[in-house]
Amino acid sequence: MTVDPAQTYTIGIDFGTLSGRALVVRVSDGAELGSAVHEYPHGVVDDTLPTTGEKLPPEWALQVPEDYREVLRNAVPAAIEAAGIDPSQVIGIGTDFTACTMVPTTDDGTPLNELPQFADRKHAYVKLWRHHAAQGQADRINQVAAERGEPWLARYGGLISSEWEFAKGLQVLEEDPEVYAAIEHWVEGADWIVWQLTGKYTRNACTAGYKGIRQDDAYPSKDYLAALNPDFADFVETKVDWPIIQLGENAGGLSAQAAEWTGLPEGIAVSAGNVDAHVTNPAGQAIAPGQMVAIMGTSTCHIMNSDELREVPGMCGVVEGGVTKGLYGYEAGQSGVGDIFAWYVRNGVPASYTAEAEKQGVSVHEVLTAKAAEQGVGEHGLIALDWHSGNRSVLVDHDLSGVIVGQTLATKPEEIYRALIEATAFGARTIVDAFNNAGVPVKEFVAAGGLVKNPLLMQIYADILDMPITVVTSDQAPALGSAIHAAVAAGAYPDVAAAAEQMGRSEKAKFKPIPENVEIYAKLYQEYTLLHDYFGRGENDVMHRLRELRRDAAARRNGN
Amino acid sequence: MTVDPAQTYTIGIDFGTLSGRALVVRVSDGAELGSAVHEYPHGVVDDTLPTTGEKLPPEWALQVPEDYREVLRNAVPAAIEAAGIDPSQVIGIGTDFTACTMVPTTDDGTPLNELPQFADRKHAYVKLWRHHAAQGQADRINQVAAERGEPWLARYGGLISSEWEFAKGLQVLEEDPEVYAAIEHWVEGADWIVWQLTGKYTRNACTAGYKGIRQDDAYPSKDYLAALNPDFADFVETKVDWPIIQLGENAGGLSAQAAEWTGLPEGIAVSAGNVDAHVTNPAGQAIAPGQMVAIMGTSTCHIMNSDELREVPGMCGVVEGGVTKGLYGYEAGQSGVGDIFAWYVRNGVPASYTAEAEKQGVSVHEVLTAKAAEQGVGEHGLIALDWHSGNRSVLVDHDLSGVIVGQTLATKPEEIYRALIEATAFGARTIVDAFNNAGVPVKEFVAAGGLVKNPLLMQIYADILDMPITVVTSDQAPALGSAIHAAVAAGAYPDVAAAAEQMGRSEKAKFKPIPENVEIYAKLYQEYTLLHDYFGRGENDVMHRLRELRRDAAARRNGN
Repeated sequence: MTVDPAQTYTIGIDFGTLSGRALVVRVSDGAELGSAVHEYPHGVVDDTLPTTGEKLPPEWALQVPEDYREVLRNAVPAAIEAAGIDPSQVIGIGTDFTACTMVPTTDDGTPLNELPQFADRKHAYVKLWRHHAAQGQADRINQVAAERGEPWLARYGGLISSEWEFAKGLQVLEEDPEVYAAIEHWVEGADWIVWQLTGKYTRNACTAGYKGIRQDDAYPSKDYLAALNPDFADFVETKVDWPIIQLGENAGGLSAQAAEWTGLPEGIAVSAGNVDAHVTNPAGQAIAPGQMVAIMGTSTCHIMNSDELREVPGMCGVVEGGVTKGLYGYEAGQSGVGDIFAWYVRNGVPASYTAEAEKQGVSVHEVLTAKAAEQGVGEHGLIALDWHSGNRSVLVDHDLSGVIVGQTLATKPEEIYRALIEATAFGARTIVDAFNNAGVPVKEFVAAGGLVKNPLLMQIYADILDMPITVVTSDQAPALGSAIHAAVAAGAYPDVAAAAEQMGRSEKAKFKPIPENVEIYAKLYQEYTLLHDYFGRGENDVMHRLRELRRDAAARRNGN
Repeated sequence: MTVDPAQTYTIGIDFGTLSGRALVVRVSDGAELGSAVHEYPHGVVDDTLPTTGEKLPPEWALQVPEDYREVLRNAVPAAIEAAGIDPSQVIGIGTDFTACTMVPTTDDGTPLNELPQFADRKHAYVKLWRHHAAQGQADRINQVAAERGEPWLARYGGLISSEWEFAKGLQVLEEDPEVYAAIEHWVEGADWIVWQLTGKYTRNACTAGYKGIRQDDAYPSKDYLAALNPDFADFVETKVDWPIIQLGENAGGLSAQAAEWTGLPEGIAVSAGNVDAHVTNPAGQAIAPGQMVAIMGTSTCHIMNSDELREVPGMCGVVEGGVTKGLYGYEAGQSGVGDIFAWYVRNGVPASYTAEAEKQGVSVHEVLTAKAAEQGVGEHGLIALDWHSGNRSVLVDHDLSGVIVGQTLATKPEEIYRALIEATAFGARTIVDAFNNAGVPVKEFVAAGGLVKNPLLMQIYADILDMPITVVTSDQAPALGSAIHAAVAAGAYPDVAAAAEQMGRSEKAKFKPIPENVEIYAKLYQEYTLLHDYFGRGENDVMHRLRELRRDAAARRNGN
């Protein structure tokens, strides 16, 4: 196929938690020509099972896979129409997905919930990334791995999450062995959607590594799995293992069925499955070693390539080819960022501020930000720890909690708000320092996600990190990243780096550190670190004891 | 004079910060028959001087003494009318005053601001207790006393306040030597009002001890005073020293002038000057050794008699005869209590709660209290330090600040509110423990003041103190206490103890510890103590460093 990049397009589809977004992108320069969003009709299934009305237990979060197909049938044609292009000019399609979201399927990829005999079984449905009901299984996975000295544990900062493939799989086995027995493939959503597009199952290197504990071409051993549960011994062999394809590779041509759904030409390239966070790096032209992309939203995910394989304390994972082929992709995370600000606005801001926001026709966040911007650095006299959702990197402790020190009777809401923003920036700095100290240097900090729209917040990050911050300037960075992968899969570029160079977009060093602020924040960062280590490294385990008292009290309330 | 207690009355007048309240009390049983309040026309003068409009510096707080005379002329007759008694049945009058509030006077008691030549001089006015502009002087008073090893310093827990007689006097000397030179008596408001009633200057043992550094019948030495400032050497000799009278003694008969103002019989007993907090003990029948009265309002003042003279860490003072003749009166304090709750309600409670309060026609405090009452002990998973106004007892450090530990994204406003209430109770427990450990046992905890009306708060205090709480049941406890003193001065009772027995009122053990709560709070108190010592005893001086950063930032803002 001859490709004229200026006349050809790819489509990136970003499958999020509540909807899927399709974006039409010009191959020559990454211009975003049109997009469309389709909400999942069932959204997140965390209350009752749609077929039976059965009440789901706490911490469950399911999805209905047909909802994902609806995105293909609706958002893709709508995006093409919005872009005003001829579908025949589309040369490839790429996708990214939430992770780890798991689909139990038959051998031909049919989700088990679509079989009549399993439609009323909750374990037959998609387990969404935020399904947290496999914590018991995850605890055993970690404990047994630590006891046996499993070498792969360090590749995940010492912690396998309850969100990932093995914990969720073990939960199915232990709670519904019949459904478990019927699973012929335990498939990442990222790969399942590609399967729907191509008619062929492929397993991408990214999720296999980050979520599937695939390291050095191997999975956890049969012995280890048997130690978790004898019936789990052949889990990898029978349900997980499958040939790996690298990111940016063509997973197969678009099937006739998918061509019909989408209105796109049959046979065009479909790139390997990918993850919403990891696909952001090419969108932001940040795939060289040392370019750390922070996707800053309700939480923050840090993704960075390196040519070094090292063990970074508290990282979420390091995977060869996890971001782009041939490099080690690192992931780290802050469990709460925008979530903390949202919690504060919901629970801690008085009526007068809400009224002011209404009067000005802006959000409460904007009112607080404007007032916080008037403060000098250090003027509020506060220091906070950003652990309201626990701490992933670098402490790996979900039972930690928030702290604020320094309130007086003169402390105002915008001061607390600013201290919370600063706390998340100190958290980011702690992660950057951990990478630097582990021999995986962070050379550039690249911000993406909803929070980049807050210039005060970004300036605070620049001042606290003492690094200029490059900003990913696409509002639809994951979908753009997927479209970039599609262009590579279609052969329009030799590799993701070359495609990102042309199609990605970022503003270099948009926010620069202000030396006077850097100096004061360096002092405050010392205070943060002192409190971080005091509360987080065992000197005072008060947070764990408070958590235990909470659990005791809840148990008493439930008459226990 | 023959006295039939059932047909005779005394009047107690409580001079507060913004108004004076007169209360008519039956001598036989303490029945409160009528009261009246008169607001001071000038209130607190902290903005501009009334005569000249001169802008006052920060931290200044003055009053106009004529306002106090207005209370005598207005509130007393109004209270008598409200009580429906014949003024001839009144056998005595007693007063209590804010402290330390200082009046600079001539030899005949005329406040200097009433002399035409000084009417426009701010230092000629009354310095209200909350005038905090003598901090520089107080710092030197403490530093020099510590350096010289002055023995009286330990009687004040190691800290002389900027609010007290010496700091305020030294400020006058150093800022307006002419006014200072004109001062013939440096008079406590408590004694000045008695002087107005009797025409005769007396100095009461209570304020002389707690605020005037009078210990073991002596004041700070001339050498010490000279070390502060050579011109201050004769301060005690020329302006302070005066014969002492004990609480409950008759300070002299009501003068013709005061009889005319009040409509009361000339010559009736006027009891010695007293302080609003200290006079509450007899109102609550709590003057025996070991009965600790906590006057719980914006801050909490703890007053207790003992037969032991000991040095209790961080106490505000111990004074022989400071509460009743013949016993050692102890005072301790929590600098912020109700103030902290008020700050939180103003700054930390969202619009939905305000709306709920409006809808129910109750205060936001009541909404929060009702919600907080539904929680089990420990269920919020929080622990706070109640230092938003610094800490008086037991750490004596005004630069400490508040802390809250344990917030999650599920933390609700009522949980923070409850944690703040608990923090103040842990603070109270810390004080009770300090007294017990110093050999001054606390045998009963007696609560007075505005906060006793919150039953949840009182139950939390009982559970955390692990002591039943007796409640002073008069709404006008200070005025009642003053009326009790008046009855003693009039000879209706042999001493304050006997009068309090008949005229005071309290409900014994109104709130009793609930064993299950006590057990959990004992664990939380350990956490409080751990954090209290970590942040308060030098292990992590972060609060001082944050305070310094605040001051630096403020200085930069002022272009410095």
